[in-house]
Amino acid sequence: MIIVMKKGATPEEIQHVIDRVEEMGLKSHPIYGTERTVIAAIGDKRGVDVTFFTAAPGVERAMPILAPFKIASLEVKKERTEVPLGRGVTIGGKRIGVIAGPCSVENRDDLLRTARVVKDAGAVGLRGGAFKPRTSPYAFQGLEEEGLKFLREAGDETGLAVVTEVIGENTVELVGEYADVLQIGARNMQNYRLLRAAGQSPKPVLLKRGFSSTLQELLLAAEYILSQGNPNVMVCVRGIRSFETYTRFTMDLAAVPALQEQTHLPVVVDPSHATGKRSLVTSLCRAAVAVGADGLLVEVHPQPERALSDGAQSLKFDEFETMMKQIAPVAEAVGRTL
Amino acid sequence: MIIVMKKGATPEEIQHVIDRVEEMGLKSHPIYGTERTVIAAIGDKRGVDVTFFTAAPGVERAMPILAPFKIASLEVKKERTEVPLGRGVTIGGKRIGVIAGPCSVENRDDLLRTARVVKDAGAVGLRGGAFKPRTSPYAFQGLEEEGLKFLREAGDETGLAVVTEVIGENTVELVGEYADVLQIGARNMQNYRLLRAAGQSPKPVLLKRGFSSTLQELLLAAEYILSQGNPNVMVCVRGIRSFETYTRFTMDLAAVPALQEQTHLPVVVDPSHATGKRSLVTSLCRAAVAVGADGLLVEVHPQPERALSDGAQSLKFDEFETMMKQIAPVAEAVGRTL
Amino acid sequence: MIIVMKKGATPEEIQHVIDRVEEMGLKSHPIYGTERTVIAAIGDKRGVDVTFFTAAPGVERAMPILAPFKIASLEVKKERTEVPLGRGVTIGGKRIGVIAGPCSVENRDDLLRTARVVKDAGAVGLRGGAFKPRTSPYAFQGLEEEGLKFLREAGDETGLAVVTEVIGENTVELVGEYADVLQIGARNMQNYRLLRAAGQSPKPVLLKRGFSSTLQELLLAAEYILSQGNPNVMVCVRGIRSFETYTRFTMDLAAVPALQEQTHLPVVVDPSHATGKRSLVTSLCRAAVAVGADGLLVEVHPQPERALSDGAQSLKFDEFETMMKQIAPVAEAVGRTL
Amino acid sequence: MIIVMKKGATPEEIQHVIDRVEEMGLKSHPIYGTERTVIAAIGDKRGVDVTFFTAAPGVERAMPILAPFKIASLEVKKERTEVPLGRGVTIGGKRIGVIAGPCSVENRDDLLRTARVVKDAGAVGLRGGAFKPRTSPYAFQGLEEEGLKFLREAGDETGLAVVTEVIGENTVELVGEYADVLQIGARNMQNYRLLRAAGQSPKPVLLKRGFSSTLQELLLAAEYILSQGNPNVMVCVRGIRSFETYTRFTMDLAAVPALQEQTHLPVVVDPSHATGKRSLVTSLCRAAVAVGADGLLVEVHPQPERALSDGAQSLKFDEFETMMKQIAPVAEAVGRTL
Repeated sequence: MIIVMKKGATPEEIQHVIDRVEEMGLKSHPIYGTERTVIAAIGDKRGVDVTFFTAAPGVERAMPILAPFKIASLEVKKERTEVPLGRGVTIGGKRIGVIAGPCSVENRDDLLRTARVVKDAGAVGLRGGAFKPRTSPYAFQGLEEEGLKFLREAGDETGLAVVTEVIGENTVELVGEYADVLQIGARNMQNYRLLRAAGQSPKPVLLKRGFSSTLQELLLAAEYILSQGNPNVMVCVRGIRSFETYTRFTMDLAAVPALQEQTHLPVVVDPSHATGKRSLVTSLCRAAVAVGADGLLVEVHPQPERALSDGAQSLKFDEFETMMKQIAPVAEAVGRTL
Repeated sequence: MIIVMKKGATPEEIQHVIDRVEEMGLKSHPIYGTERTVIAAIGDKRGVDVTFFTAAPGVERAMPILAPFKIASLEVKKERTEVPLGRGVTIGGKRIGVIAGPCSVENRDDLLRTARVVKDAGAVGLRGGAFKPRTSPYAFQGLEEEGLKFLREAGDETGLAVVTEVIGENTVELVGEYADVLQIGARNMQNYRLLRAAGQSPKPVLLKRGFSSTLQELLLAAEYILSQGNPNVMVCVRGIRSFETYTRFTMDLAAVPALQEQTHLPVVVDPSHATGKRSLVTSLCRAAVAVGADGLLVEVHPQPERALSDGAQSLKFDEFETMMKQIAPVAEAVGRTL
Repeated sequence: MIIVMKKGATPEEIQHVIDRVEEMGLKSHPIYGTERTVIAAIGDKRGVDVTFFTAAPGVERAMPILAPFKIASLEVKKERTEVPLGRGVTIGGKRIGVIAGPCSVENRDDLLRTARVVKDAGAVGLRGGAFKPRTSPYAFQGLEEEGLKFLREAGDETGLAVVTEVIGENTVELVGEYADVLQIGARNMQNYRLLRAAGQSPKPVLLKRGFSSTLQELLLAAEYILSQGNPNVMVCVRGIRSFETYTRFTMDLAAVPALQEQTHLPVVVDPSHATGKRSLVTSLCRAAVAVGADGLLVEVHPQPERALSDGAQSLKFDEFETMMKQIAPVAEAVGRTL
Repeated sequence: MIIVMKKGATPEEIQHVIDRVEEMGLKSHPIYGTERTVIAAIGDKRGVDVTFFTAAPGVERAMPILAPFKIASLEVKKERTEVPLGRGVTIGGKRIGVIAGPCSVENRDDLLRTARVVKDAGAVGLRGGAFKPRTSPYAFQGLEEEGLKFLREAGDETGLAVVTEVIGENTVELVGEYADVLQIGARNMQNYRLLRAAGQSPKPVLLKRGFSSTLQELLLAAEYILSQGNPNVMVCVRGIRSFETYTRFTMDLAAVPALQEQTHLPVVVDPSHATGKRSLVTSLCRAAVAVGADGLLVEVHPQPERALSDGAQSLKFDEFETMMKQIAPVAEAVGRTL
């Protein structure tokens, strides 16, 4: 921690900060500059917050030196994590894993048809929401347990790993009975009760970035899960909120290498939610593969305009197949396989 | 709903959209312009989503005409809602209600001292977190039920209404046993399970705006609570995330009159979280009163630099008293009382 | 400057940074922590950029300690600057100065009528654009010199100070012949050629914050003007761009006290551009006065719906008069006058 | 234009809007819904602004139907524009053009060395600033005309097209004497005087997106240039400002296909400014090629840590060569060449 004193801070104020630093078990190291005094607080204490110092008299600001996450950090674990999806498939290795399916599970037949198509085209996972967190209380909220059963059936028939969302701590156990991977949605990225419950589950977790969360906050949310003992966490980039309105969110692809230089966890990209526009999804899938993503999460629907949610961003079957054909040579160009 | 067709949309595509509109129980009204065809879909159906149309072939975009919330809307209920805090005090009337206290409940003595000071200075509510949603799993997470007991004791002694946070659907009942008002934090604004549980509680709810949520999303979150039968919802503006880093968040005070022209619910302002800087809180309290806020939520701590959370933005006792003295004439200037 | 080395930086990399620090005329001060080495670079050199160090091998990041502006800084000049508008009126003292008028000068009669009304209601300055920077090349671009003449006439008749925009370095001289105050618009805040030309003018400058500029960038833009010898700079807060779409921009009122704790320059607030909505302007004027603004910039038009630009945010004459009556008691409540 | 009336708008207010629509030469088409009346204004008038209607009594909001740009629009010109850089090279065709070089021209030798290296590695253009718009008045401002001479010499020797920045209308002629392509920087994207001057130049223009400008504003800025008669405009995506601080800006790669579905102009990507981090540039170059960019703008410096500007984001010579080798197979995978 670096604590910058205000210009004109008194010797008493400086001493007070030094005392506080040492009281917290850190070593203080004051540096007397021409305009300001700076105090470096040395030691490895992640519970110590900058605000403990910014609240002290005479302090201008305090800046952390260490990243606040630990288990998720590349400094702690150098080798990349490969997360097993539970069907002999992993995400995080040389092979790029594509997880595809409808936004919501709407009925058994559509789901089965979709699962077969995405499997044939090369996907390794089946996505689909049974519990849907919707902005409006008047929108379709999902089939709940019935949807989970359809997903399980489709997974069993096709051999695809089932990825579906948990929306509250009380849904973790039930969803865990049917799914291969628990998805935590963007709106729940800082639902700490849910993160803990997911951390205590034996299932791998796909954690989506909150649409206004920093990369550091995403890794801290992953840390909540990891710190409960579940090592199988994938982080998923899905666009952030910005001033631009042409796309639904802003696809921040630099986040992929930026995460990979901070964490060993696999990084998945969701271009469907990022753009909200079917016409942009395929080119962003290519870009995600080129930038180095470990996996893709893509929405596919047999008849997007009949979808009960997110039809505008869902690929049709033939569009999905085209996309898969387009990303294959890009994967090869960057030394990966599909 | 207004559906704008692409330039060059075929007659079949136009007819298809018209059919879809009518299939949804709306009346269609096509307008053939010089460059584009526009289809107006008429009727009062809030479950109909723009994406049902943007996914159809030949459609460029669709724009809703009606606000998607109903019970929260000023169009549905013209008179302003006054929310009873349960101590003979209401928020939403002529009197501006100040709710003050520490970020977290840390121990009994500090809480009681703080409660007495804020009561004497004119507050009507006592805030303090017993369950704390913290960004880092290594930070202080709150005293939980013990904290609730301290809050209840402080509320009983001083006559202040107790306002404290619920962080998951499972905490609603327990918190409801001790608190007068349930607070839903910014990170949980779209935790729909929690919103529902709060909607089924008999206690009034203080709903904070997510730091990257639009006003419309905030009112839709309020709608979740209202639609479960709980009419006592206050919305709280607490700063949004922007590119500016000098303050912790960006205090969007225009949100106060902007909300008041859309909803009858009382609007509370939290300048502590908005700025993250003690030095800015008092002037923003004045501004919040001047702009027309119905209430203030302010962090106060006996010794901010010893606070286990958010010390940098907590007022000291004398600063809180000064603030209360400064806002009194401003309240009078805008025809309100404290 | 604080330079944080990567974990595992080699002794050679550390020595190299120390050498670079000293080469730049700063004193280096290395601190060897448990996980990382940190090097403090001491000395007062504002031309030294953090990127000189972040580009060196083994460096994780570099953080400046000093603010990069100097003449604009409250540390360099403690007493508040009062900017003379040239009509015996100043902005920056106890009296809050209201500058009002149409977005664009459209014709002589409307301008004169508006000038008389705002003068009678208590304004000290007349705003109005003769050169208009418009997003679209097909929109009205202003009356240019003719508009300046109308402004001068209206200023002479009413005694209001004339405030009007310069949109390129070549317009500074011409505008300076007619205007009392040069306004630099948000889109030109980082037009450094223009800032320099304004810095060489004898006229005071009203510098608007770019809608996506940080407070630090605003103060650096002011520094450009000040560093050319013109001491009379007012900074103007006018809303920033965020994800919220209900208002045109997001009115960041915390910027007022945040600027005042960093600079001695007067701070003016423009709620018209910030919100883009007439219905919100009056309450934000009250808030701006309450938060401590030194001046207001408000759009007024005899018939807003006939305005050639920005009609939606312009107050009508009676609305302006009401606003002035409402802010008077607020000004008094905060110890200011109108 | 679609004009939505407020609930409860009177027949007079509705009639008034209808009159205004017709007064502007548009045809009005009122639709009487269950809750609101909507008026469609039909006709092709790009000068008519939504605010002409939002300022009228009884109007809730107005929404444009047509994009406000015309010459830049794909609707007006279907075939993709290929911009000749003046050395037998074009941008916008099958071949992806890489423009590389230092942020600023610092001295003759470094520039010549860099030009030779980037040429050998496959670049078609040489970038380098002679006039530098810098945030701080104390930072290096460029070599001005001397820098232009070095650029010309390097261009002549290597056969690279010279791309360099114009920072004010008065620099356009001088820069045009030396450069093959005029670059307009992000901070000047809405410097309309400069856009016009560039529109009157015979040289092609590389127009960078303002870091907080929407795609529509970017295309309107391009329209300023095009409307002056210069058809050779390339738009350049270079990251937008968001809340994330890990990278300098947020690289919005979805902007590439989003622009390509709206305009026929070539789209160039600048990953150096977007990220501000050398470690992320190469992977984003791959992604930019995969997403469909027509060109890349990349900063290269013989010794980045000695760079007078932007060293942290400049590639070293060997890094640039590696990048070029990595993008070649990606270009092939998407059916392009280098």
